Amino acid sequence: MKKKTSTEEKLKELGKKLVNDIDEKKNPSMDIPIRSLSNTIFDTKTRLLTLGDKASKRYFFNVAHIKKFAQTIEVAATSRELADVKKHLSLREVYYRIKRTLPNSNINIVDEQPESNKAIEDLELITGLSREQLHINANKMGSVAGNVIIRDKGDTVNWAKLGSGGWSIPSNVEEIEFKKVEAKFVIYMEKAAEWERVHEDKVWKKLNCIIMSSQGQATRGVRRLLQRLHLEHKLPIYVLTDFDPWGFYIYSVLKFGSISLAHISEKLAIPKAIFLGLTGEDIINFDLKRHLIKFKDVDIKRLKDMEKYEWFKDNKEWRKQFNLMKELKGKVELAALSSKGISFISDVYIPTKIQNKDWIN
Amino acid sequence: MKKKTSTEEKLKELGKKLVNDIDEKKNPSMDIPIRSLSNTIFDTKTRLLTLGDKASKRYFFNVAHIKKFAQTIEVAATSRELADVKKHLSLREVYYRIKRTLPNSNINIVDEQPESNKAIEDLELITGLSREQLHINANKMGSVAGNVIIRDKGDTVNWAKLGSGGWSIPSNVEEIEFKKVEAKFVIYMEKAAEWERVHEDKVWKKLNCIIMSSQGQATRGVRRLLQRLHLEHKLPIYVLTDFDPWGFYIYSVLKFGSISLAHISEKLAIPKAIFLGLTGEDIINFDLKRHLIKFKDVDIKRLKDMEKYEWFKDNKEWRKQFNLMKELKGKVELAALSSKGISFISDVYIPTKIQNKDWIN
Repeated sequence: MKKKTSTEEKLKELGKKLVNDIDEKKNPSMDIPIRSLSNTIFDTKTRLLTLGDKASKRYFFNVAHIKKFAQTIEVAATSRELADVKKHLSLREVYYRIKRTLPNSNINIVDEQPESNKAIEDLELITGLSREQLHINANKMGSVAGNVIIRDKGDTVNWAKLGSGGWSIPSNVEEIEFKKVEAKFVIYMEKAAEWERVHEDKVWKKLNCIIMSSQGQATRGVRRLLQRLHLEHKLPIYVLTDFDPWGFYIYSVLKFGSISLAHISEKLAIPKAIFLGLTGEDIINFDLKRHLIKFKDVDIKRLKDMEKYEWFKDNKEWRKQFNLMKELKGKVELAALSSKGISFISDVYIPTKIQNKDWIN
Repeated sequence: MKKKTSTEEKLKELGKKLVNDIDEKKNPSMDIPIRSLSNTIFDTKTRLLTLGDKASKRYFFNVAHIKKFAQTIEVAATSRELADVKKHLSLREVYYRIKRTLPNSNINIVDEQPESNKAIEDLELITGLSREQLHINANKMGSVAGNVIIRDKGDTVNWAKLGSGGWSIPSNVEEIEFKKVEAKFVIYMEKAAEWERVHEDKVWKKLNCIIMSSQGQATRGVRRLLQRLHLEHKLPIYVLTDFDPWGFYIYSVLKFGSISLAHISEKLAIPKAIFLGLTGEDIINFDLKRHLIKFKDVDIKRLKDMEKYEWFKDNKEWRKQFNLMKELKGKVELAALSSKGISFISDVYIPTKIQNKDWIN
C-alpha cells in the first residue's frame, strides 16, 4: 500500500454508496463482477488471465443475497479497522475476527473460512484494492538475497549482507521501499534447496543479480515482490523449475496469473517472465536423461490439461516442450544438476543459459 | 560445524579403519547402531528419545551387506569432498551426486533417495557427526526476529533490524556465531501467520525476546537454532501451538526428539522446552470454546497414540490436557485468539501467560 489514504477512501466510498441507497430508500446494493471459469478470459493483448465484464448485483433485501452481503460488509469493517490501526491479519484470522452468532438467533456471520475468503475476494473486486491493500495477508514463505537495499518498517535492510539465510519474504510487500537496486535481473527458483546451493556459490554476487525462492507454488508475497522489481526497476525475471507439468505450472502462474486469482492478475502477474529451465533440450544437452523419473498417471493427466491452456497452445516453443515431455515420459529435477558437479548449477548451467539466451519467453 | 577439522578427521578415521582392515587382510567392516523402534529408548534421566546399544556389524565381503556398505562409503566420500570445498548439498542433491551405474554392470549405487538418506543416517551414527556437520542440509524454512546480533558467512546480521520479513533461517545453523544476545527468552510459534501478527505488534521488542517460527513441524535448522540459543545462552524456549494432537506433537518433537531422529536427539532436542499454549484451560479461560473445530477420526486416533507416549503418560499435567481434549472433542487454533482483538495474542495472551507462569513443563 503506497498511499495510506487510498484503502480508507475506497472503503469509505463503499460505505457512502450504501448509506446513500438507504437515504434514498432504495434497496442497498453492490455490483460484483462474476468470478467463474466462464467469466475468466485470457487477454491476448496483455497476455494475462483476467475477468470478463459479467457482473451481478447483490441486494440487502434479498433472502438469497443477504448473508453474502453481510459478510462483505463485515470484511470491509475489519479492513477499515486494520487500516486505522495500521495492522494486518491473515485470512484465517480475519475469518475468526468476523465469526460470531447474531444476537437472539442461531445465525452465524460465517460458518467456514471459504465464506470469508470469498467475501474478501468480492471486496477486492468492489474496491479495486488487493487483499494486501485491504490489510489482509496470505502465507509467508521464501527467501531473497542480492544487490538490493530496501527500507521496511523503519529498518534499512541490505539483501547482500544477510549471511546464509537471506531475507525472509513477508506475506505483504506493498510497503517496502527500494532504496538502491544494483542487481540487473532476478532468478526465481522453485525450491529452497536450490536457492541455498546458488546462494552458497554467491551467484547473485558473481552475476550481479537477485536470487529468490519460495517452496513449490510461489506465494502472493513472492509474486508481488518479483512483479515490483520487474515493473519498478525493469529487471528481467528468470524462472527455474523442475522439468515437469507442475514446474511449468509454477511458471505459468507467475507469468499469466491463475484462474482463481484472475481478478488480481495485473497486480501479481509478470507477462514478460522468462523460463530459463529446465527445458527438454537441457535434459539432452546436459546429459540428464539418466535422471528421468517416470511420470505417474497424475502427471500425465496434468500434462494433458496444461497443453490445452490457451497461452501455451499458441506458442511453438511451449508445444515443443510438451512434446518433449511426452517423448521423455518423465520428469527431471533441478537437483539432478548436482550429479554433474556440486556447483554445476551455479558455475555452468545458469551462466551458460543466460549468456546464450537459451530460454523460453 | 564449529571446528572445521573435526568432520574431516572423523571421516579420515573411518577411512583409515577400513584401510587397516584391508592391510591386515581382514574383511573390512563398520559398526552401526541399530535404528529401530525396538532399539529406541526414552531415557528417563536425560528425558530424551535415544538409541539403545544394539549394534550390527556391516561387512564388505557379504552379499547382504555390500550395497549398503558401498552406499555409506559413497556418502562419506561426498561429505569429504563437500568439507574440502566448504560447500553443502541437500539430501536430494546428495542422492543425485552418488547415483550412478557401476561400469560394466547394471547395478546402481542407489536407486531411490531413501537409500542415500539411510546411508547418511548410518554415517551420522558411525562418525558421531550430525548431518549438518557432514555438510548435508535438510529443508530451509522459517523466520526469526529479536534482540540478537549474529555473524554468519562474513556478514553481521542484526535480527532486530530486518523490517517486516525477519531473517530467513537457513537449513544449517552450525556455523552461526552469536555476537550479542540481549533477548531473555524465545517464543516459538507453529505458524508463520502468528509470527507475522506478533512481529507486527513488536512483541520481541516489548518483552525483550526472540520470536521464531517455521510452518508445521519445525525443521532441523529451526530446532538446532532453538537448541543453540537455549544451551549457549541459557534462554528459556516457550512453544505456542494449536490445541490439537498435531500441535502437541510439534512440541513433543522439539522437547524429547523424534523416533526417526532418536540417534541425534542430543543435537536437536530441548528437554526444558516449555509449552506456553494453547492449553485446555486457555480454551475455557479465554472463552474460545465457540471456536472448537470438531475432531475427525484421524485426530482422535492421533490423540490416542499420543496419550501412550511414555514422556506424556508419566506427566500429570499432560494427562490433564489429553483428558480435556477428549472432553472438548475438538481443536482450537492459535488464530482464534484474533476473535478477541486484532492484537490480543500479543497484548494479552502471551504476556499474561508468561507473567503468571501459566505453562506446562
